Amino acid sequence: MRDFLPADAEKLRFVETAAKEVAELHGFEEVITPLVEHYELLTAKSGEEIKTRMYAFDDLGGRRVALRPEFTASIARLMATTLRNEPKPLRLFSSGTLYRYDEPQFGRFREFWQSNFEIIGSNRPEADVEVLALTIDLMQRAGLHKYWLKIGHVGIVRGLLTEEGVTEEQQSTIMQLLDTKQWDEALRTVKEFDVSERGIDALTNVFEAKGKDVAQVLAHVKKELVNCARSLAAIENLQQILALCEKSGLRFDLSVETGFARGLEYYTGMVFEVLVPEMDVSLGGGGRYDKLVELFGGESTPAVGVAHGLDRIYLAMEKQGIAPEPPRQAVSIIPIGEETTPNALTIALQLRERGIPAEVEVMGRTVSRALQDANRRGAEYAVILGPKELKEGKAILRDMKSRQQRIVDVEDISEHFQERQD
Amino acid sequence: MRDFLPADAEKLRFVETAAKEVAELHGFEEVITPLVEHYELLTAKSGEEIKTRMYAFDDLGGRRVALRPEFTASIARLMATTLRNEPKPLRLFSSGTLYRYDEPQFGRFREFWQSNFEIIGSNRPEADVEVLALTIDLMQRAGLHKYWLKIGHVGIVRGLLTEEGVTEEQQSTIMQLLDTKQWDEALRTVKEFDVSERGIDALTNVFEAKGKDVAQVLAHVKKELVNCARSLAAIENLQQILALCEKSGLRFDLSVETGFARGLEYYTGMVFEVLVPEMDVSLGGGGRYDKLVELFGGESTPAVGVAHGLDRIYLAMEKQGIAPEPPRQAVSIIPIGEETTPNALTIALQLRERGIPAEVEVMGRTVSRALQDANRRGAEYAVILGPKELKEGKAILRDMKSRQQRIVDVEDISEHFQERQD
Repeated sequence: MRDFLPADAEKLRFVETAAKEVAELHGFEEVITPLVEHYELLTAKSGEEIKTRMYAFDDLGGRRVALRPEFTASIARLMATTLRNEPKPLRLFSSGTLYRYDEPQFGRFREFWQSNFEIIGSNRPEADVEVLALTIDLMQRAGLHKYWLKIGHVGIVRGLLTEEGVTEEQQSTIMQLLDTKQWDEALRTVKEFDVSERGIDALTNVFEAKGKDVAQVLAHVKKELVNCARSLAAIENLQQILALCEKSGLRFDLSVETGFARGLEYYTGMVFEVLVPEMDVSLGGGGRYDKLVELFGGESTPAVGVAHGLDRIYLAMEKQGIAPEPPRQAVSIIPIGEETTPNALTIALQLRERGIPAEVEVMGRTVSRALQDANRRGAEYAVILGPKELKEGKAILRDMKSRQQRIVDVEDISEHFQERQD
Repeated sequence: MRDFLPADAEKLRFVETAAKEVAELHGFEEVITPLVEHYELLTAKSGEEIKTRMYAFDDLGGRRVALRPEFTASIARLMATTLRNEPKPLRLFSSGTLYRYDEPQFGRFREFWQSNFEIIGSNRPEADVEVLALTIDLMQRAGLHKYWLKIGHVGIVRGLLTEEGVTEEQQSTIMQLLDTKQWDEALRTVKEFDVSERGIDALTNVFEAKGKDVAQVLAHVKKELVNCARSLAAIENLQQILALCEKSGLRFDLSVETGFARGLEYYTGMVFEVLVPEMDVSLGGGGRYDKLVELFGGESTPAVGVAHGLDRIYLAMEKQGIAPEPPRQAVSIIPIGEETTPNALTIALQLRERGIPAEVEVMGRTVSRALQDANRRGAEYAVILGPKELKEGKAILRDMKSRQQRIVDVEDISEHFQERQD
């Protein structure tokens, strides 16, 4: 796990703040769930792979618990309990750290940061579009020059497998293989599940169909699946979502992949990921999971959501040379000698009250050493308090950049600094 | 552990944001350390009591780890390693969740929220004052009507015990008893450590000395300790800090307690807590710990810091009837029929681009049911998109409060809403 030193912490918080702004602008309310959840809850529907990579342990009360590897199980728990009777739709937002015991690699950490958005209660394509829209909004706020969405629909493959009589559990095995891009292994496994020749031909085509010409790819797959009503319905749902995006003016680069699945087992509809050319891992992903709340003991509740990797977004920003604006630098207040220290503290109090960042020299250094340090840390101004000037109500104001100094009145010193706007 | 539903999450985030503003205004830089740390690090100097209440476990790599019960050990680790050679002073800020397996009670939770500030590198009283100043600033931002600081100096008791030949380990046992207000037990234990009669008399007086008349309390204790140079130096340090507060105009209610200690063993100087009449637990506390970095293998580095219980501050706000301003409500955009749905999405995109929160009706409900729901959730406006009006470039704008409706141009619809300022 990583430490974020100030420069990195600032970037991460920039992305997190952007996610919070997106939540507010898109009408999402925040819920904060605990980091430690019951093991049973977290493993109920989270895919075999994640189970082996969780930070699980027994707490002092003997309960089996784990650090959350994702937000959605906690949200589903809320939906099945406390929020059970809340009028729909609910737009819920969460943000914070998650934990998976992965082998660390670029963009993949054991402690990682996500923002999570869910629209709960709507089975309509406009809800899917809203989730795509807020994802695009976040990427734009991050300032990314180049990113695209990879999109699919798990109903295409699942629909065909269902019609072929493959059990849900067996389907999940296949989806897991697709998630890790093991197409051939998936086809081998499908054969073991007694899928017909025609079914295997169709699946082969579905697995191969991908590209940026969405209309063409989907039309092609539709032809292959002409006899499979479930798969056709899935494709039409996807077409409907994409048509709504286009008509509403939501613009983004897109590639479609009909054999695309995501790690968590609970998806039932559209699935997507956000990708950038510089990174192997996605910056975020989500989709529709209409049965999840039910699986956690709640009422049948359609839902669609997305999680964004906040630390990955900031890595992508770095790769694309995008730096968030640095925060306002503090005014450094330097007392000369013990006797002016109270005045230095007073001026700091006054500046902060006016919204101006201020720090007092607390090392008792000489002026020149204190100025050196203020300069190194990028302070904009220094206020130097000499006992002689102070007796006349004056202080020295130094512009750290131009190195120009002038004598100013202590009383209205805050007027020399631009007030913070917020 | 708790869930924070939207109303509570909002309050918690309000306090957290206030802490971040304080950090910025007082010139602190944020560091983000992992939630999971090595068990050895966390137990190195954290007091016996905390050890038994940690969420400790072996990770999948067989390392003994635990969820952090406080921030300072992680900061000390940074100071002994990555930040070892950074020029001083460092002003470091952290914020997030911490974990202790306590019996839940009012204001005490197993997952709790703190902001943590440390000034590292200065042994001077103005650094102590800066830590007090930022604490007052946070309480004022929270809007608390009534709060006070309880303040002491562990050097008073430790100084005397040192001169009596009591070992540091034995001293820590005593400090632990003082932290839990077991004065009599502390005196009994001191006798076992072979403290002289005169020493015990002095300690009895030190343990009893407390009150709001700080000058009087400290003068009294000074007389009792007239032969103990170490304790006298501690009192003088405390007097110096309080004099600086007063001279600089930092105003706060105060009570002094010379036998006051705090749970963590590493304090060496001034210690304090923030209290409110409505709660038994403190809203925050801190002090000086000049040997901590050294204990973690770093260079000898004086430091002073404070941690604020963010969730406790919001509980205190509730007790004192202080509510943060609710956030801006979204504009609800209601399409009539499938055909106007893309336009509803387009308008939402446009409003959000202008900084106006907007949500699209995604349930396909009738206008009257959608309006009912928008009303329930406190939307300020609704935009109703009928196919007929839309053909003429018009929509219905409804003020949810006054229930007045008027026809407006879709093109410049965002001009009807006040833009968000930030």
